[in-house]
Amino acid sequence: MTAIMTRLAPGPLRLSSSTTAPGRELRMSEIDAADALVTSADPLHPANLIPELCASFYRLGWVTGTGGGICIRTGDEVYIAPSGVQKERIEPGHIFVLPYPQPSSPSPHTDRIFLRRPKLNLKESACTPLFWNAFEKRNAGSCIHTHSQNAVMATLLWEGDMFEISHQQMIKGVRKGGNGPTLSYLDTLKVPIIANTPNEEDLKDSMAEAMENHPDAAAILVRRHGIYVWGDDWQKAKTQTECLDYLFEIAVKMKLAGIPTVLKD
Amino acid sequence: MTAIMTRLAPGPLRLSSSTTAPGRELRMSEIDAADALVTSADPLHPANLIPELCASFYRLGWVTGTGGGICIRTGDEVYIAPSGVQKERIEPGHIFVLPYPQPSSPSPHTDRIFLRRPKLNLKESACTPLFWNAFEKRNAGSCIHTHSQNAVMATLLWEGDMFEISHQQMIKGVRKGGNGPTLSYLDTLKVPIIANTPNEEDLKDSMAEAMENHPDAAAILVRRHGIYVWGDDWQKAKTQTECLDYLFEIAVKMKLAGIPTVLKD
Amino acid sequence: MTAIMTRLAPGPLRLSSSTTAPGRELRMSEIDAADALVTSADPLHPANLIPELCASFYRLGWVTGTGGGICIRTGDEVYIAPSGVQKERIEPGHIFVLPYPQPSSPSPHTDRIFLRRPKLNLKESACTPLFWNAFEKRNAGSCIHTHSQNAVMATLLWEGDMFEISHQQMIKGVRKGGNGPTLSYLDTLKVPIIANTPNEEDLKDSMAEAMENHPDAAAILVRRHGIYVWGDDWQKAKTQTECLDYLFEIAVKMKLAGIPTVLKD
Amino acid sequence: MTAIMTRLAPGPLRLSSSTTAPGRELRMSEIDAADALVTSADPLHPANLIPELCASFYRLGWVTGTGGGICIRTGDEVYIAPSGVQKERIEPGHIFVLPYPQPSSPSPHTDRIFLRRPKLNLKESACTPLFWNAFEKRNAGSCIHTHSQNAVMATLLWEGDMFEISHQQMIKGVRKGGNGPTLSYLDTLKVPIIANTPNEEDLKDSMAEAMENHPDAAAILVRRHGIYVWGDDWQKAKTQTECLDYLFEIAVKMKLAGIPTVLKD
Repeated sequence: MTAIMTRLAPGPLRLSSSTTAPGRELRMSEIDAADALVTSADPLHPANLIPELCASFYRLGWVTGTGGGICIRTGDEVYIAPSGVQKERIEPGHIFVLPYPQPSSPSPHTDRIFLRRPKLNLKESACTPLFWNAFEKRNAGSCIHTHSQNAVMATLLWEGDMFEISHQQMIKGVRKGGNGPTLSYLDTLKVPIIANTPNEEDLKDSMAEAMENHPDAAAILVRRHGIYVWGDDWQKAKTQTECLDYLFEIAVKMKLAGIPTVLKD
Repeated sequence: MTAIMTRLAPGPLRLSSSTTAPGRELRMSEIDAADALVTSADPLHPANLIPELCASFYRLGWVTGTGGGICIRTGDEVYIAPSGVQKERIEPGHIFVLPYPQPSSPSPHTDRIFLRRPKLNLKESACTPLFWNAFEKRNAGSCIHTHSQNAVMATLLWEGDMFEISHQQMIKGVRKGGNGPTLSYLDTLKVPIIANTPNEEDLKDSMAEAMENHPDAAAILVRRHGIYVWGDDWQKAKTQTECLDYLFEIAVKMKLAGIPTVLKD
Repeated sequence: MTAIMTRLAPGPLRLSSSTTAPGRELRMSEIDAADALVTSADPLHPANLIPELCASFYRLGWVTGTGGGICIRTGDEVYIAPSGVQKERIEPGHIFVLPYPQPSSPSPHTDRIFLRRPKLNLKESACTPLFWNAFEKRNAGSCIHTHSQNAVMATLLWEGDMFEISHQQMIKGVRKGGNGPTLSYLDTLKVPIIANTPNEEDLKDSMAEAMENHPDAAAILVRRHGIYVWGDDWQKAKTQTECLDYLFEIAVKMKLAGIPTVLKD
Repeated sequence: MTAIMTRLAPGPLRLSSSTTAPGRELRMSEIDAADALVTSADPLHPANLIPELCASFYRLGWVTGTGGGICIRTGDEVYIAPSGVQKERIEPGHIFVLPYPQPSSPSPHTDRIFLRRPKLNLKESACTPLFWNAFEKRNAGSCIHTHSQNAVMATLLWEGDMFEISHQQMIKGVRKGGNGPTLSYLDTLKVPIIANTPNEEDLKDSMAEAMENHPDAAAILVRRHGIYVWGDDWQKAKTQTECLDYLFEIAVKMKLAGIPTVLKD
């Protein structure tokens, strides 16, 4: 069962025991207050940005067929798109808002607390527990998930548990651990590859483990599935996703052309 | 010869013997009522959606050179684009509206009944009998036909009568039979391939046969031609077309790179 | 030397000896009348269409780097874009209007007659004599020239003087001779390939010869350069260019994958 | 330390010793005057053009992940985008304006003089010293830097210090030295390739040396990084970049297909 928690926007979050009680119904004034969380004339407000960015990701082939997406965390609020919808047609009113941190880490086995849920019959993104990994382990402000074919082809051509490329200018656009200093041109970029699972939520533990084992990793590839990339904010998450996608694409071209992708200095 | 049947929009359909008489001319007031069927300020009205979706399919390379398109069925009305026109430049006034069901199933050998025809010298899509297969055999609410090169290349590299791929996340976006539950990551996606015919209408019987022989098939590939994909509504037809097109594209890349496309568990 | 001839739009063309006299200067009222030829609120007016279509061709990669373009002939007037400009940034005021027929066929060796020339320091498209081939030999209403890499790759992989492909649905979108009935799925599409010349205008004679020797040809490929495609009007020229470009693209993919591009029935 | 110099737009530049003194703070009236340099209703003003062009370069895949960009010099003023930002989201207010010439050539080791700097915490493009090479050695009015994969793949498949291709129509869109007459179809296009360096600024000397050693070169490729292209103005820089990118793309396709890229006449 899922509880809905409300707050008056834009004041500070107040978690009272009564508002978090599972099953409690929202009053109309609370619904209006919750909707204020996704209503803004500012194009850079997360509820406006997520639809715009998802539409541009669609044009890049990253989120076709309802897959993939982006979440944005602004301090103690997390904005998340619905699952199973056309990502290029999301509207601000479709956005979920969750408090951060949650009383317990989101997983398929715990109830989630919401600050705002769409009135439509929508479910929050199945990536939610994976996004939470990025918040909890890297203090991320945003996390992007794509099904880019460049990422998937990389997981097919790099058969082990690590993608590697060196000596490419675009490596410099990636940050150590996703939230540290940018890599140098002389660094070898390494991205861990984990196995896919039938249910997206079940990637949570193996993704968390790969992040812990590889603290310098800026992203996690999921074999035959796609990638999760995070950053301090949506700008950094997005530009790092672009750099990584570029590197997967050129690495695949190089591998197929017989060009080594890692040079020894 | 083709009869034109009119109705007052938006009331329920009334098929009277006089209005279905072949060759009967429409009176002006009937024409106005028929035009109301394709006149709406709602961007999600089928007469507005079909032009918008066809323009986006054009940008994807699915419907260039006048080929391909989408039809939408809303209960007892079917909205269909014209044949032989630039699909990215369709206007709502170009849309045909047919009643569903038709007195007899549309084929090249029977007259079709229309609720509304464009005043221009246009002919309804040559895909009409194929779209009807999707309505009659899967109760579809929408059917999409593309000439995507990914689909055509798949029919060239899979020489038998079935395209197959396993262990790809995007398989989860496809529904059993096109209108059932979504497939699992552990399911192998299979799409029947039928031979092309010189006249598009003549695909009707072999497409129908493949749909009957393969009740789990979510689409039918036509060798050296393209694909037909259907769904409960336009959203599901479109997202399934995107998932399938993604899978054909990556399967072709995998095959050309020597990577097996079906894994044994 | 180039003469400028004016007319009052939109009346019928009057060629008087005085207005065609080489070197005669235009009076201001004549300039205004000439500008009326490219001034219209109708988006389908050739002076508006050419900029719009060139911008869409740019997005397709057909006319980057100032190359390529489209001309439109409406009865006795020919609308042509300037040469050497960014094709995605053309404005109606940049368009040249020439009478058809010209007193003598345009070539690098004869002066051209204009109904309207831009005030800017622009030169008409270097393709003008090639476009004229399409008017004179096929009575075309429009001709398109692209530098599409699909066309150029086809001229590199088909080393003889003819590109051929059979058994592709998109063949049905091409017309016999470019202006006749559409081809059948059972027809083999053949497009002559001529050698490139250092000066674009010098292609005129070899293109004309190929058109005469192959009256069924719907287009002429120029090796290491691109393609010329024509049609009865801009719609047919454009959709045939799309079909041909699709066929070159898939033929190149097939050839590189070792799949035969022509089947014997 | 970096000094900021102001001037009243749009009058001629006056370099007084007081305004160039390192570390001097700007007064508010000076800031307003400086902002006038990037405030214009003309879409062709450099401060408006750079954001528009960068957005279109982003769609071409040339400047994703914050890399690449364009600078424009109009007489004695140079307009430059910031470094490390999303290039498709630049606004006129983000643009830097520098005087040309600078008291000393920009390098990592000298302070730069600005006519206008954004109020935000931004840094001018790391390409600035490379752009200066184009101004100083070719009197360029604009210089473009891309990370296009076509350029990078060319530097990987051409292992020596020179990319070469002959007998392609698009060669005609490139100018000798970048600012001379256009090449002929019979000319072989040659683009020098220099090694990448960990810091972009450190390319300055090797790029300058390659430009001096190859006065006919219209651009400089940087291995595993991208390309620098210049021209008399932004139009010529852009169309030459398009021609070169086309030639790298088709040359890579030809090389991978086993087709020679240089023919002996």
